[in-house]
Amino acid sequence: MLGRYYPGQTCSAAGALELVGERWSLLILRDALFRGHTRFSDFERSLGIAPNILTKRLESFVADGLMVLHAAPGEGRVYHLTEKGRSLKSVIIALNDWGDQWLHRGPIDYVHRGCGGVIRQTIACEACAQEVALDEIGVRVRTT
Amino acid sequence: MLGRYYPGQTCSAAGALELVGERWSLLILRDALFRGHTRFSDFERSLGIAPNILTKRLESFVADGLMVLHAAPGEGRVYHLTEKGRSLKSVIIALNDWGDQWLHRGPIDYVHRGCGGVIRQTIACEACAQEVALDEIGVRVRTT
Repeated sequence: MLGRYYPGQTCSAAGALELVGERWSLLILRDALFRGHTRFSDFERSLGIAPNILTKRLESFVADGLMVLHAAPGEGRVYHLTEKGRSLKSVIIALNDWGDQWLHRGPIDYVHRGCGGVIRQTIACEACAQEVALDEIGVRVRTT
Repeated sequence: MLGRYYPGQTCSAAGALELVGERWSLLILRDALFRGHTRFSDFERSLGIAPNILTKRLESFVADGLMVLHAAPGEGRVYHLTEKGRSLKSVIIALNDWGDQWLHRGPIDYVHRGCGGVIRQTIACEACAQEVALDEIGVRVRTT
């Protein structure tokens, strides 16, 4: 899986994609993150996904620490996102921004709950605090 | 594939993932975007990928408009990223940031070529120009 350029090390982007890269996984996470779905039956109805596939995906999210399962009497299985899972919002927004720009404009906007404005991903430099254009981004192998 | 909530419409994030979600696809794009690889032989050597798989992935990138193929005498097949392909940097950076934080710290930093500082993804609101915390982000179905 790894580029030989980084022997014995693992690309973080590839690692992230392992967890969210499958299409159903992405859509389940989207519904959990942005629609607040928690119940097995909510995901099933919203996505029209086969129950056995949904079970597998949710179990893998629990195993990977993206969700925790609660047994709620009368509600069936309820899944809550962990902080690790919630922070995937940034990945989904990046994918959505790119798709909106280059594939087709999708049906939803991601918005700032405070003021209702549309939100966008930006790339900024920690050192000079400037917004950085994509062609000004390079890579550096860490030495520490 | 679609949530029933948006009948007849396509999620942009899912569309983007269609193009980059396979693991080899991501790694090839990473090498093209951040290491400047263009030649078939560069990707083959860097990734240790089987030639038939590499051919398929590169052909699909050309078909999807992420790369253009140039026949360069003596150099074999040379692939250049289009603007559509180059703008995938933002997706890879988002994946990498998340993986660095939640899986393991990977071997590279993405840096600002101008000053050498480490760059990070941020989420900002277009209306109020504030940086927005992930739990302040909601979704809104577009009406136009």
